[in-house]
Amino acid sequence: MAEKSAASASLSDEQIQELVAKSHQAKKKAYAPYSNFHVGAALLTEDGITFTGCNVENAAYPVSCCAERTAIFKAVSEGYKAFRAIAIAGEVENEFLAPCGSCRQVMREFGTDWTVYLTKPDLSYRAMTVGELLPCHFGPEDLNKPKVKGQ
Amino acid sequence: MAEKSAASASLSDEQIQELVAKSHQAKKKAYAPYSNFHVGAALLTEDGITFTGCNVENAAYPVSCCAERTAIFKAVSEGYKAFRAIAIAGEVENEFLAPCGSCRQVMREFGTDWTVYLTKPDLSYRAMTVGELLPCHFGPEDLNKPKVKGQ
Amino acid sequence: MAEKSAASASLSDEQIQELVAKSHQAKKKAYAPYSNFHVGAALLTEDGITFTGCNVENAAYPVSCCAERTAIFKAVSEGYKAFRAIAIAGEVENEFLAPCGSCRQVMREFGTDWTVYLTKPDLSYRAMTVGELLPCHFGPEDLNKPKVKGQ
Amino acid sequence: MAEKSAASASLSDEQIQELVAKSHQAKKKAYAPYSNFHVGAALLTEDGITFTGCNVENAAYPVSCCAERTAIFKAVSEGYKAFRAIAIAGEVENEFLAPCGSCRQVMREFGTDWTVYLTKPDLSYRAMTVGELLPCHFGPEDLNKPKVKGQ
Ligand SMILES: [Zn+2]
Ligand SMILES: [Zn+2]
Ligand SMILES: [Zn+2]
Ligand SMILES: [Zn+2]
Repeated sequence: MAEKSAASASLSDEQIQELVAKSHQAKKKAYAPYSNFHVGAALLTEDGITFTGCNVENAAYPVSCCAERTAIFKAVSEGYKAFRAIAIAGEVENEFLAPCGSCRQVMREFGTDWTVYLTKPDLSYRAMTVGELLPCHFGPEDLNKPKVKGQ
Repeated sequence: MAEKSAASASLSDEQIQELVAKSHQAKKKAYAPYSNFHVGAALLTEDGITFTGCNVENAAYPVSCCAERTAIFKAVSEGYKAFRAIAIAGEVENEFLAPCGSCRQVMREFGTDWTVYLTKPDLSYRAMTVGELLPCHFGPEDLNKPKVKGQ
Repeated sequence: MAEKSAASASLSDEQIQELVAKSHQAKKKAYAPYSNFHVGAALLTEDGITFTGCNVENAAYPVSCCAERTAIFKAVSEGYKAFRAIAIAGEVENEFLAPCGSCRQVMREFGTDWTVYLTKPDLSYRAMTVGELLPCHFGPEDLNKPKVKGQ
Repeated sequence: MAEKSAASASLSDEQIQELVAKSHQAKKKAYAPYSNFHVGAALLTEDGITFTGCNVENAAYPVSCCAERTAIFKAVSEGYKAFRAIAIAGEVENEFLAPCGSCRQVMREFGTDWTVYLTKPDLSYRAMTVGELLPCHFGPEDLNKPKVKGQ
């Protein structure tokens, strides 16, 4: 039912199933009147607390927000910045829902070695790390490296 | 100490002061390593529940999120979409912090007649409506109006 | 046919009509498979050069870009940062198309006293300044003002 | 001097070097007063036309735009939507500059099999496909797949 990888080793099957289930519950809060594409996410912090998120769209499409980011912004606003895993839930039949590039970048801000569970509506999942989803990543430490100026 | 308008009539002075204080508390959670500009927000729903937010920046600046939006996305993800007021808190000495255009657009998605409290670090505030902050606004109802095609 | 204001005083009727016409031409390039809402923009630099833009949508809605921003980013990438006016063109019957909040913020980065022409499909227009569209604006000079820290 | 892959097979060494050089030229137009991180991009269309871009920042960080996206939006606004390659240029000493997640998503909208040249200030480069940079990608065709509703 689930493809498992080293990345998900630290969570028990039960913990994963609970996180996946919560991501599908979160989907029900989605405000997606424009795409009608409802997405949910459930984020597990290092401290064991779960934050859920859904997509929140806007008539001006570019200021819409994805479920994954909603969950992460929420956690940070409550003081949590160390994450173990995030599960992502969509509605597409028999497909693992993958995060968009922007969400991968937001995840990457808080580390590359934590787990993303891409799930299907039947609650099966595929585990990948943030680093696997965003290879050759650009992140916080890159901004302050020595530069070649006035080239 | 505070400029009051019709827009804020529905909240008592005490309620406003509480909301403003919460927005300044929320500022302490800000993740703003790039701008070092810490912002907080406190959003009051029609049901009387308060959601707080802070800015959450990213090494890739465009995927950063503002405090106001964090609070709104959070509320929506918990099932709240009707808002009475939002207070915004910054750190600039003796200045009312105004929301950016993107946040005004996100606010506008959920109505134009609710109140935005622009506050100063000394907790004084200025009340405006979302509609006053985003005149000639573009919103949900504009997407489905009759169009002139093939022009 | 057109509401005129002090803001548009510096452009001749002919110049305005040309800019408005170009914004409607630009609309034809719109990549808007998700909203089917085609928007165009034409930006006039201080040097008298016109840059056009259209909306460019994305399956991941939040990374979509509006027509106004496309025109501005384009101009900046060619070395132009001083603007006189921008015209915005949509398809909604008998309605002046207003810019979203994000675009107002991008405009505001390059000044508050230049003109935005909100147009209708029949090429009539309404002139407003960037400052009128984004009252109580937040901008470049606000980031470096003295702060009250450790509050 | 350069790592070559199948992905870049279709461009001659000379063409690649020209594209890379243009991306570094484009960097000079960057408007990056907040990060002081100047980025350039050069995009080659299937028709052999090159569009350049730079980052365009904003005091409200989230409405900033990256160089890669500026180049793509520009091309689309001129009627080009089929791309062969894009080169990305930064200033970090001896480092290949990788695109952020949002830019990967914007690239992916226009296909997965075209080439991204991550370059160093010394003009050396590393070629990757869009698909390699955004594995398990979410794109246009995913929005209309059959959904499991009312779950
Ligand atoms: Zn996303
Ligand atoms: Zn904002
Ligand atoms: Zn816009
Ligand atoms: Zn980028």
